[in-house]
Amino acid sequence: MAVTDITDPDDPRADSFRDLNSIDRRPDLPRGKGLVIAEGVLVVQRMLASPFSPLAFLGTDRRLAELKADLAGNPAPFYRVSAEVMAEVVGFHLNRGVLAAARREPERSLAQVIDSARTVAVLEGVNDHENLGAVFRNAAGLSVDAVVFGSGCADPLYRRAVRVSMGHALLVPYARATDWPAQLKTLHHKGFRLLAMTPSQDATPLPEAMAAVCDERVAVLLGGEGPGLSSAVLQASDLRVRIPMSRGTDSLNVATAAALAFYERVAR
Amino acid sequence: MAVTDITDPDDPRADSFRDLNSIDRRPDLPRGKGLVIAEGVLVVQRMLASPFSPLAFLGTDRRLAELKADLAGNPAPFYRVSAEVMAEVVGFHLNRGVLAAARREPERSLAQVIDSARTVAVLEGVNDHENLGAVFRNAAGLSVDAVVFGSGCADPLYRRAVRVSMGHALLVPYARATDWPAQLKTLHHKGFRLLAMTPSQDATPLPEAMAAVCDERVAVLLGGEGPGLSSAVLQASDLRVRIPMSRGTDSLNVATAAALAFYERVAR
Repeated sequence: MAVTDITDPDDPRADSFRDLNSIDRRPDLPRGKGLVIAEGVLVVQRMLASPFSPLAFLGTDRRLAELKADLAGNPAPFYRVSAEVMAEVVGFHLNRGVLAAARREPERSLAQVIDSARTVAVLEGVNDHENLGAVFRNAAGLSVDAVVFGSGCADPLYRRAVRVSMGHALLVPYARATDWPAQLKTLHHKGFRLLAMTPSQDATPLPEAMAAVCDERVAVLLGGEGPGLSSAVLQASDLRVRIPMSRGTDSLNVATAAALAFYERVAR
Repeated sequence: MAVTDITDPDDPRADSFRDLNSIDRRPDLPRGKGLVIAEGVLVVQRMLASPFSPLAFLGTDRRLAELKADLAGNPAPFYRVSAEVMAEVVGFHLNRGVLAAARREPERSLAQVIDSARTVAVLEGVNDHENLGAVFRNAAGLSVDAVVFGSGCADPLYRRAVRVSMGHALLVPYARATDWPAQLKTLHHKGFRLLAMTPSQDATPLPEAMAAVCDERVAVLLGGEGPGLSSAVLQASDLRVRIPMSRGTDSLNVATAAALAFYERVAR
């Protein structure tokens, strides 16, 4: 890999990393979305293991040393900078010390991601980047094979989602429903049992619900915090499922609820 | 309750809510900690149900209307403001529209909070306010009776922790260990089994570990993200416990790991 020192914050070679807080608003790029940015050694390593090929790296000498083995043979340039120049380029102090930027790749189709999946998460209205990233992290750790987006979800490749996912948003396959919620039928026809997570007291408790589908393909349906799943999705589901809760608590964070459902699916 | 209109952002009666981003740095108050601030209708309602008595409320007319029944008979003043004045006072736009401020109360002792507890969470090095708040939210929802702080934890009454906890940081009893980790022995003598959460592959899987202690008192020990529990705490524990994970994932978020442990404890 080629290492180039950059000492001028205005150097145009660093443009992929400029003003990170607004880098995802790029009307010149497809759908107005920016490059995919990985932050920190671990997430950069996960990007290198993903379908996203970095165009360039920007980082301090210390992080370059930590990534040396990972970057051997990589064709993209590494722009080596001081912490001060890095802060000037990205627009704030970024203590993770290294970034990688990659182009967005054509997205997979629903058919592709569910083809060999045993468990998928299906999200509707999860419009918060941190919650979305956390769902990916939990999916990766708890054996979920793919994520499907219904309507109203945040961008999984936005920098903050990638960071909170610990890079798993780049690794766990995902697809967008093109006809929502009608495509829940596609999942149903492929043998998935559709389990809709809801705080409703008359829903089936999670342990019982997961036990009933342990030999089948499962789609865990999750709605955004606050509104939850739409009534159309609840109606299209096979089973409404609740997490047993105490103290009159109304609901858990959506990514936490997801983790409990994924755990119950895999732990038994 | 007395409603008073405030139209001047510099009105000293609004001082408890001024410059919220720095309100927790108050060298004039005990331990340099500021007032306890509840944000939004739901969290204000939880403060009203907690041991923390609001000194004052600050909010828009719309939120006052939503809280009318809750505030009936409350002796603290409600300062009614426009959204613009509110933003000027707190220093940023706060779309939850209502705040309550309360004094800190004397904290409970370890003996008090564990006395009648069946399940407690014990935290070491959880120094992130959002993670700490999320642990409280999960504790409340998943039947944990109390939280115990070892060394290095964030302030559970800081505004952001209270907000992420959905107000449960005001409701779930907590205490600080005054001699750490020696006081783990106190828990042990009181009959608690000390389960230390760790990603180590040679630890006992969570379902098996919880099944083994289902008839006993349990303390779930959790370390901060990154370092995890200290070796002294791991050595003082009765059992090291891991969450079965996939794809070479190293760890889950600490609040998520906590939720899975609490869930496994209560769901079976």
